[in-house]
Amino acid sequence: MLLLHLTNIDEASWAASFRKALAPYPVVLRGDDFDPADVRYIFVWKPKADAFEGLTGLEAILSLGAGVDALMQHPNLPDLPVVRFVDEDLSQRMSDYVVAHVTMHHRQYTRFQRDQKARNWTQVYPPAAGETTVGIMGMGVLGQDAVRRLKPLGFSLRSWSRTPKHVEGVECFAGDEGFEPFLTGTDILVNLLPLTPDTAGILNTETFSKLRRGSLEGGPVIINAARGGHQRESDIVAALKDGTLGAASLDVFEVEPLPKDSPLWEIENCYITPHIAAISNKKSGVRYFSRIIEDHRAGKPLINVVDRARGY
Amino acid sequence: MLLLHLTNIDEASWAASFRKALAPYPVVLRGDDFDPADVRYIFVWKPKADAFEGLTGLEAILSLGAGVDALMQHPNLPDLPVVRFVDEDLSQRMSDYVVAHVTMHHRQYTRFQRDQKARNWTQVYPPAAGETTVGIMGMGVLGQDAVRRLKPLGFSLRSWSRTPKHVEGVECFAGDEGFEPFLTGTDILVNLLPLTPDTAGILNTETFSKLRRGSLEGGPVIINAARGGHQRESDIVAALKDGTLGAASLDVFEVEPLPKDSPLWEIENCYITPHIAAISNKKSGVRYFSRIIEDHRAGKPLINVVDRARGY
Repeated sequence: MLLLHLTNIDEASWAASFRKALAPYPVVLRGDDFDPADVRYIFVWKPKADAFEGLTGLEAILSLGAGVDALMQHPNLPDLPVVRFVDEDLSQRMSDYVVAHVTMHHRQYTRFQRDQKARNWTQVYPPAAGETTVGIMGMGVLGQDAVRRLKPLGFSLRSWSRTPKHVEGVECFAGDEGFEPFLTGTDILVNLLPLTPDTAGILNTETFSKLRRGSLEGGPVIINAARGGHQRESDIVAALKDGTLGAASLDVFEVEPLPKDSPLWEIENCYITPHIAAISNKKSGVRYFSRIIEDHRAGKPLINVVDRARGY
Repeated sequence: MLLLHLTNIDEASWAASFRKALAPYPVVLRGDDFDPADVRYIFVWKPKADAFEGLTGLEAILSLGAGVDALMQHPNLPDLPVVRFVDEDLSQRMSDYVVAHVTMHHRQYTRFQRDQKARNWTQVYPPAAGETTVGIMGMGVLGQDAVRRLKPLGFSLRSWSRTPKHVEGVECFAGDEGFEPFLTGTDILVNLLPLTPDTAGILNTETFSKLRRGSLEGGPVIINAARGGHQRESDIVAALKDGTLGAASLDVFEVEPLPKDSPLWEIENCYITPHIAAISNKKSGVRYFSRIIEDHRAGKPLINVVDRARGY
């Protein structure tokens, strides 16, 4: 039996799709009449504190979100495999966001918009893509997909990750000792890291001050499409105001929705989107998890299981 | 002998680079002491009416611009081969512009900027790239380069050109009868056509009204990176205001610089850049034309010669 436990999401619609995909396997919602001991799989988004109560026969926890940092903090999380949602549709949408914001900043969007408002016709020529280096933090599924999209555009690419990686056409840095050399050659910093105690607050003044200066007009740029917990917003405000950063694109925030009184809203060179860079699409979600359930019931191992020691 | 005739451009610096590349072949500027009959090649940008006077030994005209529409209208243009500048650096820069504006509109930039100004946190999710069709007018060197960049991003691509083309991964339309079917499936229209009597004013109300509606929030989008003569600006103003178009990115204008009193400047969903999408880079220009001169002097045929009947 599959139990759905999705907060602030249209559970009934997901349930209908799962029933169709898994029939005759039973799929239930919290309000339905069923024996909790029969639940083998629970599919969760922001599960409440009592979500796992009575699920004595549970075999796996399926997470709708690609990021599992919040789920890992759940006070009553059973010691069972947690399967992350890794799907191509989500990677595509995340890369759509990353490419749109990388190219917008590379083409000096802020400057031309300012000139337009002043009816100012001043011809300045952005550098060619190859003269600009995009530094990607995180070389998991999302980071590698971003590389696959940005490389054909001609950008110079470098990456930073916890453990050393080898990605074709990318200058790869890793670990604490690789962080500063990675930053000093980066014009546009893209964060796609998982949120862990090691990466919390990594987007701070010290990081910004090491980015390469002089290549992009206005200064280096940060793009955060991962988690609000990665960024210190007071540092971002200061860096945008004093020119340490030329611009920032933020899809995530320390507190969401971003509070009405946040100074970020009205900073001209701060580009805010309301955590919409990527969404887990129902169609691909049902396809992905239905196959995982069917394979597991057929005796195959689970895939994309979270490593609890790493936290992702 | 090579004569440089560049208006509003640092001729001396180009001459120095050509002298270095072609030495000992003589390179002269208009003010220098030389016999006009000795000039075999003239390298031009916006040549004056008397530019070709006395050049009785001229063998070829080399055009700094990739677009030769203005040069073709020169009242005293000799009946000699005109060589266009086709270079990878220029194509790269043009594609940089095209990709930045396609992805910006695809990611509903106008909407999110409006929401940011209102401190409005409303989660709407842009379609995935594959759900959006980019229609490219012009499948020459620039159009094909744009395809090469946009394809890996996942967009659905279609093209329209004067003569039928076959480009992998692109649904190709051609000629008058192919224009309407091309438009009706296009969400984002990118103009990279040469400017000829046939294509002048092609970006007009009738064209806009045939673009696909309902796919992109706000309506279909046009991006003009070719020539101002392709667009009817009064039609664009009307279409942006009445919602026939969701947005426009314009790098070129009927009159340049764009007059201070143009209504385009202050339309929120009109993105103006001052004809800077691509520039002919000196380094690659000198390399390109030096090789053409050397090859021609060695008896090889000229390449990228303008077809006067087509006009490009």
